[in-house]
Amino acid sequence: MTSTRVPQADRTRAMRARLLEATVELLVERGFAGTSTTLVSERAGVSRGAQLHHFPTKNDLVVAAVEHLTERRGAELAEAAAALPAGKRRTRAVVEMLGDHFSSPVFAAALELWVAARTDETLLAAVAPLEQRVGREAHRMTVAALGADESRPGVRELVQATLDLVRGLGLASTITDDSARRRRILREWADVLEKELTT
Amino acid sequence: MTSTRVPQADRTRAMRARLLEATVELLVERGFAGTSTTLVSERAGVSRGAQLHHFPTKNDLVVAAVEHLTERRGAELAEAAAALPAGKRRTRAVVEMLGDHFSSPVFAAALELWVAARTDETLLAAVAPLEQRVGREAHRMTVAALGADESRPGVRELVQATLDLVRGLGLASTITDDSARRRRILREWADVLEKELTT
Repeated sequence: MTSTRVPQADRTRAMRARLLEATVELLVERGFAGTSTTLVSERAGVSRGAQLHHFPTKNDLVVAAVEHLTERRGAELAEAAAALPAGKRRTRAVVEMLGDHFSSPVFAAALELWVAARTDETLLAAVAPLEQRVGREAHRMTVAALGADESRPGVRELVQATLDLVRGLGLASTITDDSARRRRILREWADVLEKELTT
Repeated sequence: MTSTRVPQADRTRAMRARLLEATVELLVERGFAGTSTTLVSERAGVSRGAQLHHFPTKNDLVVAAVEHLTERRGAELAEAAAALPAGKRRTRAVVEMLGDHFSSPVFAAALELWVAARTDETLLAAVAPLEQRVGREAHRMTVAALGADESRPGVRELVQATLDLVRGLGLASTITDDSARRRRILREWADVLEKELTT
């Protein structure tokens, strides 16, 4: 039996990861209302008992899932950003990367969670601090990737505006495929941003 | 009896308006999943039969409701924008007006509809053309309000970016009250936009 050779901690970690991945997939495919803990355990191939042990409620599961994947994608982004060249090409590349990130399935899953939390107090209590942490982290990462100097007046606001812009574009992309439009807007935005950051 | 003195067409119009207002209120308060046709008819004080006659399904009702209120709010915005002074103050005022509009209850109702449509093909078939029409109308109105010259390179993209930015800020505002942050970002962006539009 394989199970005797794989340490328990590793198996637990793998099982949790499967549950979280399955939850995000279901949020993307069926939305918040269409995601049930039964569907998650089926898709993850995890027993109901084990699932309930780790995540007692649907809210625990969806919050953990979006947190997990947002953090993983954030780390990937930060790594990719660190490898970019300097100057105007870098600003364009950073803005484009952010645009792609906020149009990905992980964004759709997060959107389902944010919107459900708007009218569900219990969920909101878990989602609001997560959203703030994720927002701060995205801001910090963007400042670093752009090499922006936030001590200069207006720079902090324009970095925030960049993140709100890609969030808005991400929302639009969930119901229409407008990647060509997005690319044109972000290229123009990046050039304006680059000018504002350096002059 | 009052009903003998109010023409039938007026009563029908008033009843439709009550149904649409009640639908938007419920979308804002309870979200898409929590909005039912029964709750709408109760709140609007309209019989089930009359409601079903005008809006046979929940989808008909929610799409008509968001369309109705978006158009009404759009017309109010266009009127307010026309009365604004010229120059930098105008750009700031237009951007701030858009920011307020996209953080209003009507935006929350539209958001519920957009997100539900992402995972519901029938709803998407009705929502996608509405979203495009509303988007084009918002763009046209913003160009007019800003007095922007779209024949100049980049101007069209920056107007679109402004609308995507306020959409992103609107999304953020649905779960955290960040009106102070929004004001700072939009003031900074308005100044950059004004510069880009005029030089």
